[in-house]
Amino acid sequence: MYDRIKGFRDFYPEEMGARREAIDTLETTARRYGFREIGTPSLERAEIWTDKSGDDIVEELYAFEDQGGRHVTMVPELTPTVARLVVAKQQALSKPIKWFSTRPFWRYEQVQQGRQREFYQTNVDIFGSSEPEADAEILAWAADALTGLGLTGEHFDFRVSHRDILGGLLESYDADVDVRDAIRAVDKSDKVDRAEYLDRLVDAGLSDGQAAEFADLIASNDLDAVVEYADTEGVTGAVDNLQAVLEAAEDFGVREYCTVSLDTARGLDYYTGVVFECFDSTGEVSRSIFGGGRYDDLIESYGGQPTPAVGVAPGYATLSLLCQRAGVWPEEALATDYYVLQVGDTHPTAARIARDLRERGHVVESDVAGRSFGAQMNYADSINAETVVIVGEQDLANDEVTVKDMASGDQVTAPVEDFPGDRDRPTIGDFE
Amino acid sequence: MYDRIKGFRDFYPEEMGARREAIDTLETTARRYGFREIGTPSLERAEIWTDKSGDDIVEELYAFEDQGGRHVTMVPELTPTVARLVVAKQQALSKPIKWFSTRPFWRYEQVQQGRQREFYQTNVDIFGSSEPEADAEILAWAADALTGLGLTGEHFDFRVSHRDILGGLLESYDADVDVRDAIRAVDKSDKVDRAEYLDRLVDAGLSDGQAAEFADLIASNDLDAVVEYADTEGVTGAVDNLQAVLEAAEDFGVREYCTVSLDTARGLDYYTGVVFECFDSTGEVSRSIFGGGRYDDLIESYGGQPTPAVGVAPGYATLSLLCQRAGVWPEEALATDYYVLQVGDTHPTAARIARDLRERGHVVESDVAGRSFGAQMNYADSINAETVVIVGEQDLANDEVTVKDMASGDQVTAPVEDFPGDRDRPTIGDFE
Repeated sequence: MYDRIKGFRDFYPEEMGARREAIDTLETTARRYGFREIGTPSLERAEIWTDKSGDDIVEELYAFEDQGGRHVTMVPELTPTVARLVVAKQQALSKPIKWFSTRPFWRYEQVQQGRQREFYQTNVDIFGSSEPEADAEILAWAADALTGLGLTGEHFDFRVSHRDILGGLLESYDADVDVRDAIRAVDKSDKVDRAEYLDRLVDAGLSDGQAAEFADLIASNDLDAVVEYADTEGVTGAVDNLQAVLEAAEDFGVREYCTVSLDTARGLDYYTGVVFECFDSTGEVSRSIFGGGRYDDLIESYGGQPTPAVGVAPGYATLSLLCQRAGVWPEEALATDYYVLQVGDTHPTAARIARDLRERGHVVESDVAGRSFGAQMNYADSINAETVVIVGEQDLANDEVTVKDMASGDQVTAPVEDFPGDRDRPTIGDFE
Repeated sequence: MYDRIKGFRDFYPEEMGARREAIDTLETTARRYGFREIGTPSLERAEIWTDKSGDDIVEELYAFEDQGGRHVTMVPELTPTVARLVVAKQQALSKPIKWFSTRPFWRYEQVQQGRQREFYQTNVDIFGSSEPEADAEILAWAADALTGLGLTGEHFDFRVSHRDILGGLLESYDADVDVRDAIRAVDKSDKVDRAEYLDRLVDAGLSDGQAAEFADLIASNDLDAVVEYADTEGVTGAVDNLQAVLEAAEDFGVREYCTVSLDTARGLDYYTGVVFECFDSTGEVSRSIFGGGRYDDLIESYGGQPTPAVGVAPGYATLSLLCQRAGVWPEEALATDYYVLQVGDTHPTAARIARDLRERGHVVESDVAGRSFGAQMNYADSINAETVVIVGEQDLANDEVTVKDMASGDQVTAPVEDFPGDRDRPTIGDFE
């Protein structure tokens, strides 16, 4: 027997059922907002990632040469692919373009809790609007998706920031600051002590005094103080934009889930405006659940016309950790409406009843293995059948079937010709 | 701008919507039969395929060495993976095991109509029953799935055969016949003329006379004649089993879609009993739409306990060809229930109305790009909005909104406080 590859999961029906319920919730919410599903390839040209030097993602690629000599890679993230789709039909697509998709991605990373090498995300993006309402709609979708899963404001928190507040502040210093390095220091600030954080800011070009002031200002999350400290066009514009997004989030009914959190920096390589991350409010799940933000320059960088964009991509590994912590992850158990049990040579009648029940939309199993009454009853129990319809030769001689409620153990007989009859979902109560 | 990889498709929303509808139909039908969804990895060890020499599939693998030195391959078919899942939990799983999943597979093949290098299938399998009812349930699911798509017996035909009828007949000859080669000759018989077909049978070990008799017998599809010609245990047992499966199909209400077709051989490497292929009844789509059958030895060959199995795996590329030919493929168009149009500074009210409509389950878009009345109306038209709710500053001053039916162009005003009110799906008729 061969074994599974490390970092790749099998999902048996119980766990898959819960996962499917979660995926359905996110996708149904996306559809209601008018996001449209797209389907995208598992492979893209490896150059898309390898041509950009210095990107950590390259070391994590499942890249190889195919039988036709193409350098290809299993896709580690959706953004370049959706950019390709937008650019390919830029003229024909009416804007804003609102797309979603749920699919696997692959990265050769260290396997740990909440992180596999194959992982599923639902990507949700809006292309073609730079307005705060677009950022807010992404926040609204994410919040509605989480509350749809049964989470509340007690369970999660969107930490919202703006790339240009950090960048604008850093550029306002009369010093040669490496903005990217400084933002990385901010991004990692919760993982190191204050002294090391300040050291890193100094390494990025700030003086000791500037580093301390900057760190305190960021930590205050006080937007008025930020504008007072540095009223450059970049900073005030960014603060105004962040406030406009939060106001629009109020209209969408999701302001309550958002906290201004200026040290939320999100790696940042392609983000250009508002960024946010979803966290477990209790901190019990310590890592970010997912994140998103605005990336206005990306489509152009792939050869398209300038196209503002904003998006988010929850992954199911971390989402299930949060939902399990909060006690709202769907139950991992099979559900079956009816088991039609056959005793003796009753297959034609049992098959007719099963068919009638399926036509009403129910989950119905019946024997396909020629097994005994007891074995069928055990099986019905193992699949959590709510109702068992016993089609026995003796009952049939009286033109009857037996209907058994599995929770109570109660059973009644019903006329075979009138089962299910005109009932949508017959239960023992219909025949008592 | 980089380009897409040959054989890998992008699906834009219109086409994806139709495809999703088809997938939903097949999956919903599977759920009603009590098939349970599983989730499986995109990569498996390449040895699973390369260790079996002589398998054509090996040349078609997207195989490579990962960053940890593992020989891996993108999965070209589901069977070895489900076998692994069955074997890994053989004791814990209650039988019969009934699983389904929809996912992509990858083969480096010649790209042509209905065949891409990345292709999606819904695999549906039953493990742990050797009874004819299990074969029939697979046929029943497949037929119900197709009729669920809008197809009828006028459109498709299941050509049903039995691996041991061909094998038993060939073994009954007093000659040294290479059964596998002979069955391959049968499998390709519709692609060559009779002379070449007979030559191939002779190459496989039959005499000229035997080849002609065998070919005529197979072509007759007359099971009585088959038993009369060779009443060996193998042949009579296979004929009995095929007839039992067809009788069970009658109970399931799907016998009418099945035709005995003894030259349906299905490549066959792992099939052991009943096999079938779905064809376009008109022949307009000339290739097989999909196929399936019984493979009782496979689980054991992967180190499990002997476990009978039967399954089928429709792919969406060929299925869409059949449905398009029959005129039942879902319409490739966007559908939108409401567009909430904003004129002036009416975002809070528009957002409230959009939220209320979404909570009722509708697909609702609203402006997130700060656009003009005309631009919004054009956009609403481009997404096929059924109803546009116009939230304008002037109307709002009168505590009203305007509701416009896009098909007729008719519009009415409605009290803003009573929209949508307690209506599930408000239309202009509610306010006339």
